[in-house]
Amino acid sequence: MSDTLKIDALKYHAEPKPGKLSVELTTPAETSRHLSLAYSPGVAEPVRAIAENPENAYKYTIKGNLVGVISNGSAILGLGNLGSLASKPVMEGKALLFKRFANIDAIDIEVNSSDVQEIVRTVELIADTFGGINLEDIKAPECFEIEKRLIEKCSIPIFHDDQHGTAIVTVAGMLNALEIQGKKIEEAKLVCLGAGAAAISCARLLIAAGMKKENLVMIDRTGVIFNGRENVNQYKAEFANDVTTARTLEDAIVGADAFLGLSGPNQLSAEMLKKMADKPVVFACSNPDPEISPELAAATRDDVIMATGRSDYPNQVNNVLGFPFIFRGALDVRATAINEEMKLAAAYAIRDLAKEEILPEVIEAYGGNAFEYGKEYIIPKPLDPRLLNRVGGAVARAAVKTGVAKVALPECYKI
Amino acid sequence: MSDTLKIDALKYHAEPKPGKLSVELTTPAETSRHLSLAYSPGVAEPVRAIAENPENAYKYTIKGNLVGVISNGSAILGLGNLGSLASKPVMEGKALLFKRFANIDAIDIEVNSSDVQEIVRTVELIADTFGGINLEDIKAPECFEIEKRLIEKCSIPIFHDDQHGTAIVTVAGMLNALEIQGKKIEEAKLVCLGAGAAAISCARLLIAAGMKKENLVMIDRTGVIFNGRENVNQYKAEFANDVTTARTLEDAIVGADAFLGLSGPNQLSAEMLKKMADKPVVFACSNPDPEISPELAAATRDDVIMATGRSDYPNQVNNVLGFPFIFRGALDVRATAINEEMKLAAAYAIRDLAKEEILPEVIEAYGGNAFEYGKEYIIPKPLDPRLLNRVGGAVARAAVKTGVAKVALPECYKI
Repeated sequence: MSDTLKIDALKYHAEPKPGKLSVELTTPAETSRHLSLAYSPGVAEPVRAIAENPENAYKYTIKGNLVGVISNGSAILGLGNLGSLASKPVMEGKALLFKRFANIDAIDIEVNSSDVQEIVRTVELIADTFGGINLEDIKAPECFEIEKRLIEKCSIPIFHDDQHGTAIVTVAGMLNALEIQGKKIEEAKLVCLGAGAAAISCARLLIAAGMKKENLVMIDRTGVIFNGRENVNQYKAEFANDVTTARTLEDAIVGADAFLGLSGPNQLSAEMLKKMADKPVVFACSNPDPEISPELAAATRDDVIMATGRSDYPNQVNNVLGFPFIFRGALDVRATAINEEMKLAAAYAIRDLAKEEILPEVIEAYGGNAFEYGKEYIIPKPLDPRLLNRVGGAVARAAVKTGVAKVALPECYKI
Repeated sequence: MSDTLKIDALKYHAEPKPGKLSVELTTPAETSRHLSLAYSPGVAEPVRAIAENPENAYKYTIKGNLVGVISNGSAILGLGNLGSLASKPVMEGKALLFKRFANIDAIDIEVNSSDVQEIVRTVELIADTFGGINLEDIKAPECFEIEKRLIEKCSIPIFHDDQHGTAIVTVAGMLNALEIQGKKIEEAKLVCLGAGAAAISCARLLIAAGMKKENLVMIDRTGVIFNGRENVNQYKAEFANDVTTARTLEDAIVGADAFLGLSGPNQLSAEMLKKMADKPVVFACSNPDPEISPELAAATRDDVIMATGRSDYPNQVNNVLGFPFIFRGALDVRATAINEEMKLAAAYAIRDLAKEEILPEVIEAYGGNAFEYGKEYIIPKPLDPRLLNRVGGAVARAAVKTGVAKVALPECYKI
């Protein structure tokens, strides 16, 4: 990060007042009459209505448009476990993105605990407050258990964005990259370097999108994951590969069509890149320093499609393409969960939008650069205003189709 | 409540969108650059700054101006235990009042539990999120234990408004009413009907303001509270009166200078009112139906000063005169608690403001009725804009004086 960016970032967070959010009124509160409607005695009426039928909370409170952004700060960005309080700027930032991109009211809640049982109970007890819960920056493997148990206990969508948001956007981009390279997902061989929360969710969604499990090789710090290897937890075991004989990245990368890096800087060498199949796809998502720099990749071979997590290179795999719109769609049909079909529908909607002509306003927002579907534009830009309806609609329709929607599909999402 | 008010109240909560609040951005989020400051990668800087020094959370996040309004819905207004979800309109209403009156960002959190230990642990774990916590509508005696334990565990202000907010405004009004009647608080005899959360806090603050404990008779459903009586919990025992020989309200009220009703409708009969001392003070705060109607009181004797909890009679004892400004003052000096000195300072500031000339804008807001310090105007009106600086300043100065302030007194509060 440049010093200018660092200084500007601190200033951005300190002015015009500390932080990035405020809570505002949506109803008038100027007269004595207003106050008697907003609070005692008038407020007793919506209270009674909700006590009679809990669904009325969606009619008379902000619940239905309110997302809790919840973290314990145990895996903040690439910075590690810095505690719940230090995660607050990130969580407020997430809330800012929810509002900016999908008009969702979101508020951060920092939970000061590293105990799975305690975090689950805390979130479960405050879940009434929200229409949905976005878990964020909670380290693996605890994040899996926390999300799983909360899904069982809560009747509102629970979504760990580090897992599923990343997976949805990655799959969207990967499908397009493979297509542009003339490869079929059903035949493509992929090496996934990293076996954390995001990697496991990516692998799961890639398989749901058509990738063969035997064509996917997952690698953690110990090496290739296969059945019977030591240090393989239940989550990694799901992706143990018993077809490959490779035990290292060096071996596994030979002939691979695609590389998905969710690990750390400079893990993929030029030598390895050379050994990949013709027309390879490289997603080097480690942030801020990717598994291989776009410069080195381009210098090594010219038939590669490259994506990173960075905004200063083409093809940014950016979660903001997903989570605001996924929650928008889920909230709009009052979905009780965000299931696999909804995630895949979101990925397909993002994939499809990249193939449409880019809007002039988007070109302008990104400094006047034109984009066209191809090697340097495999996924839409976050500021593309069509994402809201496309992704939100796809998610809402999938919710209705799979029976998790509690209200009918809004007109705006009908196709 | 009239049918019109009921219908209007439901409409008010349903339009223009469900509920009364929204979360908005205070920083720009229009360009790619903005997003890189608000979120990754720029957000890493405030994260690091907070990890190095937790106090930086007050500089780079909304923590310092954010109050959590927390309830389990076990004692909602006068409606009883309707559960946490049903309490949401009230808590959102409280957040609305925080914003409207003191520009405090407040968000409601409903905790779905009736277990003291569990509620304490939940609030403790999420306390990092907030600069202060307003507990609301939690039934007695659990509310005492919950507040006490949270004060021990948290380094931010914890304030159960049903107790202390009520007490502060009640004491402010009572001091003026007694003065107008020519009575001294040190000599006044008071009967407190009700021994719940609000009553106990009122009694404590009245004594702190100069009332003699032996002049205060507290009465619960069983009768007068005295040492050795059955069914006296530790909280009521603090106000056991061993001087009086009265055992019932009928006996205790004879010769009393003041009556404080925090019980239920029509508990104080005309007969009882007749037996009070000359120039009595009657605070009939049961809502919506007071312990004695102002009409009956006026018909019974003309030397009484009457206050109620209702906005449609003179002298409304209304918590909104207190909590927004008390938190404003506490947050502005980053107080680690709201102690007894701060509460008393708030009460005195409210008391004093009633003696000042009323502002034309306040007269207008209340339908053109002029008010003057006297029998029908013993406490200020909630829409009096001077409350913010007067009460906030008094609380902030008391915090500094008692050593619980972590930053210096702002200029605006210096006198």
